[in-house]
Amino acid sequence: MKARPREGETASAYRAAGVSIDAQEEALSEVEELVRSTATPGVLSELGSFGGLFRPPLEGLADPVLVASADGVGTKLAVARRAGDFSTVGRDLVNHCVDDVLTQGAVPLFFLDYVGAGVLEPASITELVRGVAAGCRDNGCALLGGETAEMPGFYQPGDYELVGFLVGLAERQAILDGSRVRPGDVLLGLPSAGLHTNGYSLARRVFFDLLGLAVDDPVPGGGATVRELLLAPHLSYLGAVRPLLGHPALHAMAHVTGGGLTDNLPRALPAGMRARVDTGAWEVPFVFRAIARHGGVERREMFRVFNMGIGFVLVVDRGAVAPVRRLLGSAAVLEIGTVERGEGGVVYERGGG
Amino acid sequence: MKARPREGETASAYRAAGVSIDAQEEALSEVEELVRSTATPGVLSELGSFGGLFRPPLEGLADPVLVASADGVGTKLAVARRAGDFSTVGRDLVNHCVDDVLTQGAVPLFFLDYVGAGVLEPASITELVRGVAAGCRDNGCALLGGETAEMPGFYQPGDYELVGFLVGLAERQAILDGSRVRPGDVLLGLPSAGLHTNGYSLARRVFFDLLGLAVDDPVPGGGATVRELLLAPHLSYLGAVRPLLGHPALHAMAHVTGGGLTDNLPRALPAGMRARVDTGAWEVPFVFRAIARHGGVERREMFRVFNMGIGFVLVVDRGAVAPVRRLLGSAAVLEIGTVERGEGGVVYERGGG
Repeated sequence: MKARPREGETASAYRAAGVSIDAQEEALSEVEELVRSTATPGVLSELGSFGGLFRPPLEGLADPVLVASADGVGTKLAVARRAGDFSTVGRDLVNHCVDDVLTQGAVPLFFLDYVGAGVLEPASITELVRGVAAGCRDNGCALLGGETAEMPGFYQPGDYELVGFLVGLAERQAILDGSRVRPGDVLLGLPSAGLHTNGYSLARRVFFDLLGLAVDDPVPGGGATVRELLLAPHLSYLGAVRPLLGHPALHAMAHVTGGGLTDNLPRALPAGMRARVDTGAWEVPFVFRAIARHGGVERREMFRVFNMGIGFVLVVDRGAVAPVRRLLGSAAVLEIGTVERGEGGVVYERGGG
Repeated sequence: MKARPREGETASAYRAAGVSIDAQEEALSEVEELVRSTATPGVLSELGSFGGLFRPPLEGLADPVLVASADGVGTKLAVARRAGDFSTVGRDLVNHCVDDVLTQGAVPLFFLDYVGAGVLEPASITELVRGVAAGCRDNGCALLGGETAEMPGFYQPGDYELVGFLVGLAERQAILDGSRVRPGDVLLGLPSAGLHTNGYSLARRVFFDLLGLAVDDPVPGGGATVRELLLAPHLSYLGAVRPLLGHPALHAMAHVTGGGLTDNLPRALPAGMRARVDTGAWEVPFVFRAIARHGGVERREMFRVFNMGIGFVLVVDRGAVAPVRRLLGSAAVLEIGTVERGEGGVVYERGGG
């Protein structure tokens, strides 16, 4: 790792080959400030060192375990390009990674990002990194380093790839691996803010190709524009869930990313148990209904591609739902189902009301 | 993080939008085996968990520090595509990251990768991951997880993006931060095997655009083909340098990546010191001479874009060169210069012989 910019994109013949150094250096100074704004006590290294140095807070831990996650934001990046707005995807990316390690009971330590582009435009780079830095600050996570690669001819002009890596820390005994889950446990759903970072290839096809909408057009049947619906943030659930970490009634958690509830709930459960979800327990947000209707996508498939309004799920002891809700504080909480014996993932039912 | 494939690329309407699930599942089983082949005692998680779990070996460390690096392999990927050979870049990527954290005295713990493509072809994915897994095994580093993203329309057909993230571990007191460097210290260079992973935009321009060569054509003036020269591996220096870690005569190290000796040697030195390099101390390999000649690239620029045959540099106490050489064992070692007082990076001189 290095700070940025780097990788030898520094000389004039190189520039003739399509790599612009001045643009990189212009972006560098603001990026440096942004990185510094995320520093936590664990950060030991200066920008520009070969590797980022981080001293993990091990005090009081009997058996510390690192929990790591790598993620992208998929073709939400293509929406960002259409919208001319790279300010939101950085935060999305950090929150995605934070939620991944949170499911196992870990809190984030540090994050590294990778930005790839055919031509690095300083304004876009700083927008991307500003979002990453904001996400890091929100989650108390240091932006320890990153890589910016200018790869002429590899990306379409104006396109950026954005990849993130996060390392979190947990006490081994507190790691949630599914073994605490019992039949009868209650599934508490925390609402998403939209698609988060999954299902964008299908969503783009429906809004842009099938409906022929521009990014600032309102989506038929709802008041919001495509931009508002598709650039809605990927939420971090760290703030809401943190007071619950280590609570004996918290048996497991699932981050509802690609694969929806259908693929992600089973990842939180041990063999021999499945989830029963009452899809009448919450109102599926407009954006998903619009995709299903205009794309002709079946309900079953919708639940396997999109989060359908539930971004994160807590698997909780039935007898402790009330205190758990109190610890979740002001976060909206939906009781969406239960755990039962059985194989086969998720059973959906439409409860009456 | 998840194992792979993932991120909801799982349903038939999704496939209509350009995402192929069967191909992903086909790649999955071999990838799982490859990941398992890299397991080290620290790995606690199963494939498919939200985050990769790793128990760092902290025994005997007074003040453990994590050292993290994020890297790509740049447009070496475009050479791999032309050559129809994605088997080598994975190892390049791991070795690049390993060398980065090695410069500060850290040994690798675990690695995560990200593969992005417009369409995931199982054979290419497994080739890429096979290289990553081989690199991990070579370096005693666990492949803890990764992300595979199919992003239709985002990449050219046949192109793959490959990003890596590595976490290493060091004892804080043993971290090399430049503070041990003294005027008079000797620079020992370890040979590179070629361009490693830097300078590919310029190299491709010279060989493919200016000389009009195909990937299997011999480069004029040398016996090797473009493929052989440009897909030569990025070496890991961990095996050679490991016996030296913690040795009091080892004052600093530099990994010669983008920016060449010109930008990377100063990163290893404290303020007020510079490097004096005798460019007559080694023979610049053919590939660099060919690029300079056919591309009309000035010497000064060559040293700022390419490693010029020196992939890694040890900054060593002058009085301990002989024992350090013995510890480096069979590794070829070149005495390429010294450290002196002064500002301004690197002074190149051509020593007489």
